[in-house]
Amino acid sequence: MFDEKIMNIANTLIGHCRNGTEAEGLSSLYAGDAVSVEAVDMGNGREVKGVDAIRGKHDWWNNAFEVHEASVEGPFIHGENQFGAIFAIDATNKESGERSPMREFGLYTVENGKIAREEFFYLAG
Amino acid sequence: MFDEKIMNIANTLIGHCRNGTEAEGLSSLYAGDAVSVEAVDMGNGREVKGVDAIRGKHDWWNNAFEVHEASVEGPFIHGENQFGAIFAIDATNKESGERSPMREFGLYTVENGKIAREEFFYLAG
Repeated sequence: MFDEKIMNIANTLIGHCRNGTEAEGLSSLYAGDAVSVEAVDMGNGREVKGVDAIRGKHDWWNNAFEVHEASVEGPFIHGENQFGAIFAIDATNKESGERSPMREFGLYTVENGKIAREEFFYLAG
Repeated sequence: MFDEKIMNIANTLIGHCRNGTEAEGLSSLYAGDAVSVEAVDMGNGREVKGVDAIRGKHDWWNNAFEVHEASVEGPFIHGENQFGAIFAIDATNKESGERSPMREFGLYTVENGKIAREEFFYLAG
C-alpha cells in the first residue's frame, strides 16, 4: 500500500529516534542543506538551514532538558516523499526546573532520497 | 504562544469533527477551490479539487463505513497558516464487513483566512 523507499527512510529515522542515535540519523539520512522549521519562534527564529545547524539544535536540546520519558509513534505516510511521526516527551527544563509533557508532529519531506525539510507542529489542544 | 487566527480556524474545524458537523465546517471554513490529497491512491487518484468534490468524499465515506468510535486530537500548530489533527477511527467497511482501527494525521493549510489544502498521512507503523 505504501511506497517502499519512503517507508525505509521513515522507519530508519524513527528507529534512530527510539534508540537515541539521532546524530547518526542526521548524518546518514539528511541532505547537507536540509531545512528545519519550528512551530513557533522561541527567540532565535523559526528556521535553520544545514545539517550542522540542525545538529546545533539537537545539542541545545540535550543540554537544556532532562528527559524522563520519550516515545515515537509512526510513521504516518503521505505519498512518495513525505512522512511524519508523533513525538511525546516528558522533560524538565534544567534551568527553570519546570517539568512539562510535550507532544509534537514532525513532518519530513524527502528529495532525491534524502530528508530535505523537517517541520514541527506543536500540540496546542 | 500560538497565532490567534490559526488557533481559531483549527479549533472550529476540530469542533465540527467532534460534533459530527463536518458538512458545516466544509461550507464555512474552506476555500471554494480547496484541494484535498489522500496519502495513497485507493483507485480514484489521490487528489480532488473544490468543496463539492470534498463533500463527495465525505458522502462516500459516510455511506461506505459504519463508525463505532472516533476521536480527534489537536490542534497541532505550525506557524501562522498550518495546523494538523490526529484522527482515530474504529469503523467497519459495510461491503466487506472488515472492521479496522484507522489512525491518520490531517494537515491543513490556510490562505486568506480559508482552508485551501488538506493532506492526509496514514499511520503505517
